[in-house]
Amino acid sequence: MSIAHRTAETIWEGSLAAGGGVLRSGSGALDGLEVTWAARTETPGGKTSPEELAAAAHSSCFAMALALLLGKANTPPNRLGVEATVTLDDVDGVPTIVSSALRVDGWIPHLDAAGFQRVVDEAAALCPVSRLFACAAISVEATLQPS
Amino acid sequence: MSIAHRTAETIWEGSLAAGGGVLRSGSGALDGLEVTWAARTETPGGKTSPEELAAAAHSSCFAMALALLLGKANTPPNRLGVEATVTLDDVDGVPTIVSSALRVDGWIPHLDAAGFQRVVDEAAALCPVSRLFACAAISVEATLQPS
Repeated sequence: MSIAHRTAETIWEGSLAAGGGVLRSGSGALDGLEVTWAARTETPGGKTSPEELAAAAHSSCFAMALALLLGKANTPPNRLGVEATVTLDDVDGVPTIVSSALRVDGWIPHLDAAGFQRVVDEAAALCPVSRLFACAAISVEATLQPS
Repeated sequence: MSIAHRTAETIWEGSLAAGGGVLRSGSGALDGLEVTWAARTETPGGKTSPEELAAAAHSSCFAMALALLLGKANTPPNRLGVEATVTLDDVDGVPTIVSSALRVDGWIPHLDAAGFQRVVDEAAALCPVSRLFACAAISVEATLQPS
């Protein structure tokens, strides 16, 4: 019995260089988002890309893992900012996702920087998308902000 | 020198159960999308989730890999439909992304089902998101549609 199944579809027309794709998703939230090779590798021009969507998956998943663990530690966050940067690189001539770098800011009353770092490390071990991306180099830079 | 860096951020406020997050992304395409734990694991209610975003990353990346390889084989597609279903499951008490199942439909002139299957298998080996998700069980069901 799974916790959740979530679905998204890309309808692609034409060649990689000249064609393009349109997304739709089970929730409807991603419906109509466009993807092209040029937007993926040159200037986005308002279009998303596999790397940006992967960054969004990682960022939102890590934020939830952190919110869970901070709650369990009786220091729920006022606010968390979790930014993920996903890098596509040429590895032996093959485009490869080599890293997802997280930058985490926390506004959390009654917690010091060392305590925050401990919970961030726990979140990195728990977050399902961090574990899914284990083959990429995951890094986390965490800053506790004044509350 | 990387091919692309793409960034997305989640701003989360409150606890996991009662709080929620809002996305923004480098391209602007994902700005304002909301995520909550309830939408992730119960009814989406128009909200996206880490699993849906991961499915969108996989679906769009696989469509591009397939468009590239079909072009190289001199059988560019009229149309491709690539649906990814990402499953979050409880593994020894820990929520874990266990699979991404792809369903691929191709409308491709001058190609037979065996030729399509060969290119789909090549795309599965090439697609950067398939390789990133290598720890999850990736499956591909491919159907060549009448052109």
